[in-house]
Amino acid sequence: MVAAGVVGSTGYTGVELIRILTEHPEVELGFAVSKTHAGKTLENVVPGGTAVQLVNYEAALLDRIDVLFLCLPHGRSAPLVEQAYSREVRVIDLSADFRLQHADLYPQWYGHEHTHLGLLGEAVYGLPEVFRPKLKAARLVANPGCYPTSVLLALYPLFRSGLACSRVIIDAKSGVSGAGRTPTATTHFVEVSNNLKPYQVGAVHRHVPEMEQFLREWRGEPVSVVFSPHLLPTSRGLLSTIYVSQDEGWDDSDVEQAYSECYRAEPFINLLGTDEMASLAHVNHTNSCAIGWTRAGETLVITSAIDNLIKGASGQAVQNMNVIFGFDETTGLRI
Amino acid sequence: MVAAGVVGSTGYTGVELIRILTEHPEVELGFAVSKTHAGKTLENVVPGGTAVQLVNYEAALLDRIDVLFLCLPHGRSAPLVEQAYSREVRVIDLSADFRLQHADLYPQWYGHEHTHLGLLGEAVYGLPEVFRPKLKAARLVANPGCYPTSVLLALYPLFRSGLACSRVIIDAKSGVSGAGRTPTATTHFVEVSNNLKPYQVGAVHRHVPEMEQFLREWRGEPVSVVFSPHLLPTSRGLLSTIYVSQDEGWDDSDVEQAYSECYRAEPFINLLGTDEMASLAHVNHTNSCAIGWTRAGETLVITSAIDNLIKGASGQAVQNMNVIFGFDETTGLRI
Amino acid sequence: MVAAGVVGSTGYTGVELIRILTEHPEVELGFAVSKTHAGKTLENVVPGGTAVQLVNYEAALLDRIDVLFLCLPHGRSAPLVEQAYSREVRVIDLSADFRLQHADLYPQWYGHEHTHLGLLGEAVYGLPEVFRPKLKAARLVANPGCYPTSVLLALYPLFRSGLACSRVIIDAKSGVSGAGRTPTATTHFVEVSNNLKPYQVGAVHRHVPEMEQFLREWRGEPVSVVFSPHLLPTSRGLLSTIYVSQDEGWDDSDVEQAYSECYRAEPFINLLGTDEMASLAHVNHTNSCAIGWTRAGETLVITSAIDNLIKGASGQAVQNMNVIFGFDETTGLRI
Amino acid sequence: MVAAGVVGSTGYTGVELIRILTEHPEVELGFAVSKTHAGKTLENVVPGGTAVQLVNYEAALLDRIDVLFLCLPHGRSAPLVEQAYSREVRVIDLSADFRLQHADLYPQWYGHEHTHLGLLGEAVYGLPEVFRPKLKAARLVANPGCYPTSVLLALYPLFRSGLACSRVIIDAKSGVSGAGRTPTATTHFVEVSNNLKPYQVGAVHRHVPEMEQFLREWRGEPVSVVFSPHLLPTSRGLLSTIYVSQDEGWDDSDVEQAYSECYRAEPFINLLGTDEMASLAHVNHTNSCAIGWTRAGETLVITSAIDNLIKGASGQAVQNMNVIFGFDETTGLRI
Repeated sequence: MVAAGVVGSTGYTGVELIRILTEHPEVELGFAVSKTHAGKTLENVVPGGTAVQLVNYEAALLDRIDVLFLCLPHGRSAPLVEQAYSREVRVIDLSADFRLQHADLYPQWYGHEHTHLGLLGEAVYGLPEVFRPKLKAARLVANPGCYPTSVLLALYPLFRSGLACSRVIIDAKSGVSGAGRTPTATTHFVEVSNNLKPYQVGAVHRHVPEMEQFLREWRGEPVSVVFSPHLLPTSRGLLSTIYVSQDEGWDDSDVEQAYSECYRAEPFINLLGTDEMASLAHVNHTNSCAIGWTRAGETLVITSAIDNLIKGASGQAVQNMNVIFGFDETTGLRI
Repeated sequence: MVAAGVVGSTGYTGVELIRILTEHPEVELGFAVSKTHAGKTLENVVPGGTAVQLVNYEAALLDRIDVLFLCLPHGRSAPLVEQAYSREVRVIDLSADFRLQHADLYPQWYGHEHTHLGLLGEAVYGLPEVFRPKLKAARLVANPGCYPTSVLLALYPLFRSGLACSRVIIDAKSGVSGAGRTPTATTHFVEVSNNLKPYQVGAVHRHVPEMEQFLREWRGEPVSVVFSPHLLPTSRGLLSTIYVSQDEGWDDSDVEQAYSECYRAEPFINLLGTDEMASLAHVNHTNSCAIGWTRAGETLVITSAIDNLIKGASGQAVQNMNVIFGFDETTGLRI
Repeated sequence: MVAAGVVGSTGYTGVELIRILTEHPEVELGFAVSKTHAGKTLENVVPGGTAVQLVNYEAALLDRIDVLFLCLPHGRSAPLVEQAYSREVRVIDLSADFRLQHADLYPQWYGHEHTHLGLLGEAVYGLPEVFRPKLKAARLVANPGCYPTSVLLALYPLFRSGLACSRVIIDAKSGVSGAGRTPTATTHFVEVSNNLKPYQVGAVHRHVPEMEQFLREWRGEPVSVVFSPHLLPTSRGLLSTIYVSQDEGWDDSDVEQAYSECYRAEPFINLLGTDEMASLAHVNHTNSCAIGWTRAGETLVITSAIDNLIKGASGQAVQNMNVIFGFDETTGLRI
Repeated sequence: MVAAGVVGSTGYTGVELIRILTEHPEVELGFAVSKTHAGKTLENVVPGGTAVQLVNYEAALLDRIDVLFLCLPHGRSAPLVEQAYSREVRVIDLSADFRLQHADLYPQWYGHEHTHLGLLGEAVYGLPEVFRPKLKAARLVANPGCYPTSVLLALYPLFRSGLACSRVIIDAKSGVSGAGRTPTATTHFVEVSNNLKPYQVGAVHRHVPEMEQFLREWRGEPVSVVFSPHLLPTSRGLLSTIYVSQDEGWDDSDVEQAYSECYRAEPFINLLGTDEMASLAHVNHTNSCAIGWTRAGETLVITSAIDNLIKGASGQAVQNMNVIFGFDETTGLRI
């Protein structure tokens, strides 16, 4: 049994994470921290939530846990990562604090210097289908953003096989839980319902550098990303429709082979194949990523769908934990 | 042409009202006040809003308008009512400030003394199908609440004809725009979507005394109301399913006759008849109230549907204006 | 390990059932029958479905399974029940074919004579919280309807304690999956979205006699039910708002005690308590029933919520299987 | 007053069209044909529909009308167009039968030879913002498809000004009413709700040749279109997110000028400007097209939103009628 702690328990990712951990046969929940709701149970705060006691961070006993999950806003996560890391607790950080590998990107994209540069080099990017070998020994996991998860899983086989070019257009659509629980004008039911709203279109969303750093690494040269996220009138689910221009001659069988080689044995990748398209219905409430594609002239159109709260956040965090602790990777997760 | 002013322009009722007034062939919009957004146009604040300039209340010239619409929270409306009333401007108040006829109900239900008792007696309750004669001469209209509109229109013919008893159960369901534009945990898309949530069940909602005062008047003795509102995962629309126990022997034809006598000539009442049920689809985006009913043993089940923003607020306000100024009552309103 | 077979695999209850059985640690899925889609896998037919091979009924080997689940329309289930029953396979029938105890109710409510009267007396109504002792030895389980599940669980403690009267009003609201997968005008997205639609209001829905037979049994005399179902713009979830008039003097503590006595130890009953109301968010995607209540004068208002596909169908079927085979009742089910 | 006839009255476009025509101050509705529902009123067939009598086509008196609107599936429209055309009735055809200018495209895209080649050359494509001069004298209008309306309005100013290249990627999302009223697995509420589903991705949708023919005309050489439609969980509304690569040096002011020159005076074009994005909320329930854009490197990203039933179908049909009969173009239409 692994003892796990959670900080940031009442946000959407926290609630989903605690549900998964509570049902996980190899995990015992050590504590669940909520600054705002300490003293209550989660089910008192969130209808349908688990009957777990919420405590202050001060009452969270780091020395009694093996792994710490942090579901906090960026900037607030890093200090807690350090405390746990220094006590030899494995850390899975769902914030953005360790996702970008180069420190100089943080001021530009997150508005502040990185406060824990020493740890930055320790972090392993938690996309198991790509970085599994490194993850097995990781002491600090930077759990990927939801959009990058869907996009990088869709593009990795192509870039790895040289079947991709230097320019990618990503038209992405996400459910509202991706925007967090804090009520804003943007998340008001009346504003979202019957609507579809593009936001931060171009190359201005914080997930752009997270995607570009790996695409560049895989290609060996910079890749430019055009990224258009849209807010969907759904609670959860994320679909990226990705347009890749052809670099050089390749055909359908090359693409199929590239995907098959990478993902044939991956339990959480649902390869739909050529001329089949992924939809939210393929993946919602599961930890799977469904991928389908078709060709239109010189353009390959790829659709990649995940549940933003599971494969895009808490499910992937638990998958990473499974990798680290040597459990069957699907334990406690729905395929 | 009538010159109209609006105060509280960017809430859901304000936006809907300005749209109706802008399209109304007999109305010229004198001013649209918004404390928060003065200086902008409405379409800059609300996607899809009208291209109307928003001004401060100080810039609103009461002496240039014939009628003032107030779309404000309770308590904030009464002082402006007085200013307009004293300048001989007709006032249609969409707040609750003048809906309850007895001053002593305000502290109990709204938490403060009524500040303008002198005007309370002047207010006419703006339900044209019931109070049209009085409304023609009204200088101050208390525009009804959304729930009371659907319930009172459904029950008036029965009570008027003596076909009702002293106890009414109302199971009501409303779209989220009824909760206003201010973002709260309750109106967050993720909380509302895929959900149905009862709230303020029993006899604790502020619309209970508003309904009871007229039921008592029509019956000649107190009527007890059990009222269970539910928050629907829709932007707009309100359905009341009403259960009336039988007082004395009556049959289907009595009920049909009661409704027919009252509403035969009413343009905005859509009488569906016996064994037909009203739904939101009958009324959304119109100023109509659809009413259908069926009998189950000793219980008459009545369904009454309105668009909460139109017949339940801004449309009815314009209908009241049409009555006051002698326009055809359907002018500018969708049936 | 228990070997289970499913007939009717591609309807909403079949898909949900197969998902639960596939994840159940004590169950091996023997076969999944689909008349229409035999030869395909479920995930080919239903995006997000399990990777289970679908077969014809002829290929379903009854002698290799311990329990058969039937997810068929009424009338089509009974003949298969007989085949399995005669081979000593336990049967959990999700259709209505064995829910009504009196044979003469079938022609009236389902339009045909009951074809297997000999089995009718063998069937145990599968509401474990009420009929657990009988279910342990059951060879044929009549799995309850979704509406009756929510209503009977809400009313059983009151009737059992003599805290209820002879007349009950049920205002119920259900998500669209309750109407089945076959596309109709009623289930078209455009007709359901932004709508709320009452249907079969009064005492004409087939779930009325199912509820009345147990209320009568518990009270010892007939109970009249007024039942108003409404179609909600949600995929799943069912809320019954129930109005019970007071028979004799009782107070809040009596009600609390009645619920507590019955359900204190029930893992799937979430007692919210006095003045708390159940919503779909409390129960969706779980096998729980959330119950809350409040008093309004002489009326007790009870809200009871379930996920219609889980506690209202497939989850409860698995709960019944757990009871029969002596597994912990929560095995494979989400609380 | 113009007398108008409608054939195909009970589909989503027919219902919307009849609502608009009924409220139009210059139109008298001569007849409303429905093969399936003749003898009923529209409000009996469609909750919320207009109280208009439905008749058989045989009872439709062509010589009493000035303009005929056809809301029929492709292939069924052309014969009726001919009958009306030969009687000098103006025809506005909402089907695809006269949208493609070259006869040889019909077998390829619609599966049958064009049956009325003589009329094909007479048809004017009904996009008033582009083809207004021709439309004024048109006797037969081919009312555009919904997707082409949003795309062509967005691209016309760019192509007209030489600010566009030979390859366009269109990621489009439409509400379900675009799929018509006939119930199918695709339009079932449970399949659409909580989902986003790409379909006919690449260059296989019938609206592709409709878009390409005008892009080619405007550019003077072929333009290749990659087109990815997605089914949104909304009843109505259509958003196209369009990616245009840069041909040659241009800057933001060129783009702004191009749009401004074309659309400055257009009542139904809502130019949001640089770095503002269109959403469904900008346009639903109106005849407007909202257009906003931003630059990302060498790519111009344009968002173009319409209400698919209004500007994408029935509203544009009435706009075309207004052009033909010389009414103010906004008459009877919401901006």
